[in-house]
Amino acid sequence: MNDPTPIPAAIAPLPGSRKIYVQGSRPDLRVPMREISQSDTPEAFGGGKNPPIYVYDCSGPYTDPAAKIDFRRGLPALRAPWIAERGDKRPTAGKNITQMHYARQGIVTPEMEFVAIRENLNRSAWLAALRTSGPQGEKLAARLTRQHAGEGFGAAIPDEITPEFVRDELARGRAIIPANVNHPESEPMAIGRNFLTKINANIGNSALGSSIAEEVDKMTWAIHWGGDTVMDLSTGRNIHETREWIIRNAPVPVGTVPIYQALEKVDGQPEALTWEIFRDTLIEQAEQGVDYFTIHAGVLRAHVPLAATRLTGIVSRGGSILAKWCLAHRQENFLYTHFEDICEILKTYDAAFSLGDGLRPGSLFDANDAAQLAELKTLGELTDIAWRHDVQTMIEGPGHVPMQMIRANMDLELASCKEAPFYTLGPLVTDIAPGHDHIASAIGAAQIGWYGTAMLCYVTPKEHLGLPDKDDVKAGIVAYKLAAHAADLAKGHPGAQWRDNALSKARFEFRWEDQFNLGLDPDRARAFHDETLPVDAAKSAHFCSMCGPRFCSMKIAREVCEFAEMNQK
Amino acid sequence: MNDPTPIPAAIAPLPGSRKIYVQGSRPDLRVPMREISQSDTPEAFGGGKNPPIYVYDCSGPYTDPAAKIDFRRGLPALRAPWIAERGDKRPTAGKNITQMHYARQGIVTPEMEFVAIRENLNRSAWLAALRTSGPQGEKLAARLTRQHAGEGFGAAIPDEITPEFVRDELARGRAIIPANVNHPESEPMAIGRNFLTKINANIGNSALGSSIAEEVDKMTWAIHWGGDTVMDLSTGRNIHETREWIIRNAPVPVGTVPIYQALEKVDGQPEALTWEIFRDTLIEQAEQGVDYFTIHAGVLRAHVPLAATRLTGIVSRGGSILAKWCLAHRQENFLYTHFEDICEILKTYDAAFSLGDGLRPGSLFDANDAAQLAELKTLGELTDIAWRHDVQTMIEGPGHVPMQMIRANMDLELASCKEAPFYTLGPLVTDIAPGHDHIASAIGAAQIGWYGTAMLCYVTPKEHLGLPDKDDVKAGIVAYKLAAHAADLAKGHPGAQWRDNALSKARFEFRWEDQFNLGLDPDRARAFHDETLPVDAAKSAHFCSMCGPRFCSMKIAREVCEFAEMNQK
Repeated sequence: MNDPTPIPAAIAPLPGSRKIYVQGSRPDLRVPMREISQSDTPEAFGGGKNPPIYVYDCSGPYTDPAAKIDFRRGLPALRAPWIAERGDKRPTAGKNITQMHYARQGIVTPEMEFVAIRENLNRSAWLAALRTSGPQGEKLAARLTRQHAGEGFGAAIPDEITPEFVRDELARGRAIIPANVNHPESEPMAIGRNFLTKINANIGNSALGSSIAEEVDKMTWAIHWGGDTVMDLSTGRNIHETREWIIRNAPVPVGTVPIYQALEKVDGQPEALTWEIFRDTLIEQAEQGVDYFTIHAGVLRAHVPLAATRLTGIVSRGGSILAKWCLAHRQENFLYTHFEDICEILKTYDAAFSLGDGLRPGSLFDANDAAQLAELKTLGELTDIAWRHDVQTMIEGPGHVPMQMIRANMDLELASCKEAPFYTLGPLVTDIAPGHDHIASAIGAAQIGWYGTAMLCYVTPKEHLGLPDKDDVKAGIVAYKLAAHAADLAKGHPGAQWRDNALSKARFEFRWEDQFNLGLDPDRARAFHDETLPVDAAKSAHFCSMCGPRFCSMKIAREVCEFAEMNQK
Repeated sequence: MNDPTPIPAAIAPLPGSRKIYVQGSRPDLRVPMREISQSDTPEAFGGGKNPPIYVYDCSGPYTDPAAKIDFRRGLPALRAPWIAERGDKRPTAGKNITQMHYARQGIVTPEMEFVAIRENLNRSAWLAALRTSGPQGEKLAARLTRQHAGEGFGAAIPDEITPEFVRDELARGRAIIPANVNHPESEPMAIGRNFLTKINANIGNSALGSSIAEEVDKMTWAIHWGGDTVMDLSTGRNIHETREWIIRNAPVPVGTVPIYQALEKVDGQPEALTWEIFRDTLIEQAEQGVDYFTIHAGVLRAHVPLAATRLTGIVSRGGSILAKWCLAHRQENFLYTHFEDICEILKTYDAAFSLGDGLRPGSLFDANDAAQLAELKTLGELTDIAWRHDVQTMIEGPGHVPMQMIRANMDLELASCKEAPFYTLGPLVTDIAPGHDHIASAIGAAQIGWYGTAMLCYVTPKEHLGLPDKDDVKAGIVAYKLAAHAADLAKGHPGAQWRDNALSKARFEFRWEDQFNLGLDPDRARAFHDETLPVDAAKSAHFCSMCGPRFCSMKIAREVCEFAEMNQK
């Protein structure tokens, strides 16, 4: 095998952007942000400075020109000193090292402070820069930081996230910081309804395709475009080795579904699985540094017959494996009966639960049915158990759900699982869009995010059809960044609208480059613009190809504004 | 200029599909549908027939192999006999010939019957075929026609659409059938909240690009993928001639914004516009057969200053032209002062109003502001006037609106405009997605469609960046078909879920070809599948590239079902 090497595009900063670090309370606590620079407002529009704006940055050291990237060495162990100081790697007997436990003891860890700084997006710096940007600075700041009131459906997001707020959310179980002590390379991030909505990208090979290098590429590509976590769902060859390359080079939390590898160990025969094989696999993966595990402990033996009348049966791989095991052995799911044993393992590493929805619907027909809801109720009971161990926990959700039934999913999850973070796949709002399921699911994702889902698992255009390639990964990520941001806007997340305002101002002032760079996908925006108006001069032209130079509504609109202002004088 | 010639892909039936006609009450009333054939269920899944299913077909004669396509000759004049029988082309003085007028007189026109048949999608035929498909037919029919209860927000959709229902909806003004008597080539379709949600595709050249042939291509391409109407927004050269080619070859209603052409006639100087120039342009276009006109009569002189403090001013081209005219002349908008004159013209042809939202927001910042809402109120007053003339009327809506503010747009429209059909552009739920605005807006479109919008104006990936090409047109159409269908599902539109059920069944049974063909984009679904598993045998393989042959959740799930059934015996 050739060693994986970075894709040049994934380690280049996005156009107009540079990585900055916001300093925390200790020298080694430096929180990365992406700074997007802006050009001045042209004189024709009144002139003036447009200070750089800051956005969330998942891309890790890859986009820092000062960093030396070597996949074989892996990333620097950012959190190693914090973990070492706490003695988390070799805890004394009886000592609990989870972030939830620390939070409940009233301890604010560097991870919590890191998250707090990260979530605030350096907004105060932008605000200050706006205010001092010129004689109209105060007015400009007031204008560009205006935001519509949100509808939060019970969310409780403060204007400024403090480390203490992060601690409190963790202690309540309303948020998690997936941070295995054996993955010190990861930059802390929070998943919770009172934080920015996050997205996950699934990667991983299957028996039929893809190499380790391709999967590491997909990981760097996914975080380049804004993936907050990645799940390695490999089921093919080299599962262990693929995961090792991914984790050592991932600045984001990595999740897995350990039953996949366990099944490989028993030659794909679900009935041959045992608790011991699973346990050993779980420990193997936790040792490597997996930050969260999908555990299908809610697929109870009694739930399985409820799925028999479905149109699309059990579409979760993990769910179907465990259902088959239960039926074959006429015994309860061993993940359920050994749930406290799993808690003991997870708390040793501070790996988090992602309680799997093995009975999620695979079609609108099966949405919100008895099997799905029975499992959700069980997940609520398991959440209580996990929390007794101070193990961080989130809850997985559907799937395929028509729009009018999405809200019920969220409300039931909040009630059953006491606001433990919800982590949903889509949901897809129709089944008839193969090839475009990133859109079918982004529609549902935006809505469930609005209602309170903390992390949205992306769906790529290849869903139902094949393994995603790099283009599909990007398409899925961008659709989901968009959906997550739409959710933040609708919830009224403080400051969510600032970037929209900045981009709209750039658009109105024909600052084309700024419009591209402030968007989610500067490369595509620029390429699309250049298809019809390729010359560089067009980037500062006060018109575009939609209307042409003579017939520009934006231009006329400005004249109208000037006219109206003149008349007021 | 070379004559436009059809794109081969646009005149080929979609894979697995053939055009059928459902016979109405008179020999010349034959309603097109697309029949999608399905293969049998493999024996491994219990065997059995899967009768063909019927879907809405906007593609006109182009996908009928029996039709002879010649752009120079134009399409056959389907409605000519109906129009002639009524004497609509040369009505006697005082006679009103609009579909709304006929409806209010209690007359059911062939157009209304056509629409009724079309909206029912031949569901009864599918149901009957399911029932008689084998020994399990009744059970299968009951299963595949199951559908979740919808949330209609006041929609009143009957299980079966009758011609009388169509008449009643038209008479109330809750629906329109855009059907200029000079566009007899069009196949009647209805826009109204109690009918299937429709989508519009904008085409048209600008001063900077595109030829007549390209625009006719875009029209045929748009309807091939499901555009229900097209708007020709040309602002460049050859406006009249481009429109003539489009209308003569369009089996769908064609809309325009006549002020664009009027402005060309005065060399792009809004202040040089006069009522007379506009009136002559309107008559010129109505004579050609334009089915609906965007008329920005709600941009009142008093509204313009309300837009002065906006972030993105007036982004509607028509809105900005009229705003400038009002300010320059210190007079009221001539479209408003001459509104009854416009009604007189439109009723002569049965062209419909699309009352333009010239003050729609161009950014989240400007959403639901005073300017926008003042205009909407005026549109309500104009609706009353149009209805006094029995002129069919719909209302245009935004734009850029965050999710939590979408519902208010719909509710205000229903209240102000008494349920006249709402026709919205998106709305885009965030401003930060240039290059992906078909997705940003499909998220909003699905929701506003659910709340009651009758027609969704597509947005392509090129929005804000350039003129859409053919690929962009398709991307926009598919995203919007998806959003419109999601809306129908959520409203609980009778039978909306049947196609989803059929596709999900095909998916579960590994009928790959059927899964592709039942989807919105068979070509892309097939291409994506073939990227990883290109051999033909894989199309009947009971696995796919996502998991590989050994590790298939669908396969395991089937075993679970069989096991569960066995245990029940």
